[in-house]
Amino acid sequence: MEHDDNEFLVPPRVTRRPGRPGTESLAKEETRDTILDSAEQLFSQLGYTTTSFRDIAVDANVNPGLISYYFGSKRALYEAVYKRRGKNLTDRWSEMLDALEERSDQPPTVAEILRVYLSAQFEMKQKGPGGVAFFRLQTRLHSEPQKEAFMLRRDVYDSVGRRFVSLLERALPGVETADISWRFIFIIGVGLYMTSDVDRLNDLSSGRFDSNHLDEALERMMTFCTVGMMAPSTELKVRKAPRKQKTAKAAALPNLGSRARVK
Amino acid sequence: MEHDDNEFLVPPRVTRRPGRPGTESLAKEETRDTILDSAEQLFSQLGYTTTSFRDIAVDANVNPGLISYYFGSKRALYEAVYKRRGKNLTDRWSEMLDALEERSDQPPTVAEILRVYLSAQFEMKQKGPGGVAFFRLQTRLHSEPQKEAFMLRRDVYDSVGRRFVSLLERALPGVETADISWRFIFIIGVGLYMTSDVDRLNDLSSGRFDSNHLDEALERMMTFCTVGMMAPSTELKVRKAPRKQKTAKAAALPNLGSRARVK
Repeated sequence: MEHDDNEFLVPPRVTRRPGRPGTESLAKEETRDTILDSAEQLFSQLGYTTTSFRDIAVDANVNPGLISYYFGSKRALYEAVYKRRGKNLTDRWSEMLDALEERSDQPPTVAEILRVYLSAQFEMKQKGPGGVAFFRLQTRLHSEPQKEAFMLRRDVYDSVGRRFVSLLERALPGVETADISWRFIFIIGVGLYMTSDVDRLNDLSSGRFDSNHLDEALERMMTFCTVGMMAPSTELKVRKAPRKQKTAKAAALPNLGSRARVK
Repeated sequence: MEHDDNEFLVPPRVTRRPGRPGTESLAKEETRDTILDSAEQLFSQLGYTTTSFRDIAVDANVNPGLISYYFGSKRALYEAVYKRRGKNLTDRWSEMLDALEERSDQPPTVAEILRVYLSAQFEMKQKGPGGVAFFRLQTRLHSEPQKEAFMLRRDVYDSVGRRFVSLLERALPGVETADISWRFIFIIGVGLYMTSDVDRLNDLSSGRFDSNHLDEALERMMTFCTVGMMAPSTELKVRKAPRKQKTAKAAALPNLGSRARVK
């Protein structure tokens, strides 16, 4: 079996036999899940390149040939790992947004929409080692800006992501739509950093605070992100004035406190 | 020369000859910089594990032995790459914060402090391929939560990071210090995501907006981050009420709109 590291979205070359699901296919489903669990842990710990079929086979206690049989290439296995838990997350978001929208008395508020976005991520993270591994895997994907990684991310997240933006636009008719989209991207950045276990709260607060308490993290993120999302539209000024000769000190402080004044 | 991938902070085993700086040491300085430039590009593109001394030697057009001579181990070279540009950034922050603090008429405002933090990063990013490579390298470091990576990050950023937190605390006497530290961490997350060229603005706005304009990005980040930083303290309630039996729909909406209400 060839492991093609360069092709990303290769469909698994699995020969399927027709038939009803029975004991045999249940056992298959379990084996498939066991392989996915091992791959998720190893990809997140060692990275994509370093992890081999052999490593996964040893961890999952199966024959390496079986992994090829179920998933085809290493890329396809990686994709299956990412999509499995990515789909759990997007399904949960959709379910929570449906419930908000089905409520007849009032449309969803900014705080409600953002609470859905942030709380579902912490929910998944709290579910155990699989959730933790997934977020680490996801952060790794974001540090590898390659076309194939972007395609996978779009495939999993675009539809529900656009729904969040659209709901926020309806909840904030007075804010420029460009700001709403940009701010949602900023909030994605906050969410990624705070689910990846690499934040610097302990260091920068000289040990006064730490971010291990997910309930507290969620509430503090809610304040920051909701208030930021509801801020007045950003005032953008075209910079046309010719640059004057500056003193050394003035040069050290370009544009300080000029635009986007919010006080 | 052994390349020890496990030891991180090994000092370079360079034998230095005493003497005044002259043409020879200037040439050495240039060679050193050329090696650092090549290593920065390759580490950021291929990752730490995949990049070899040989790759760097070919790219820098020097003998691989010379890299060992100047830097010792691969880890030490990586560290030198990270610290070189990390120091540029922290020096620029310090210079801009000094100028703010030396101003006698009024203490720095939240917007001024955050503009220093965010604008210096975009300044470095705009300086060319080296700046871009550094931010990608830095994002990669954050996706590899290993003890040694954290030590390097602390070494470079802790001192100036604490200065930012301390200045923000002075500028916001009415906000709980815990919130100020947490919010600064959220802003680090925003900055990392927006300097790493992996954001999803184009996707999620269905192509209406894109984040290639750093001036615009800075102004929109300034609004979001400044308003978020200045938000009222987060109200944390201890969750002591026993959980009631929930209907399916209610269960889909835990805690919606309850805490940290900001409207």
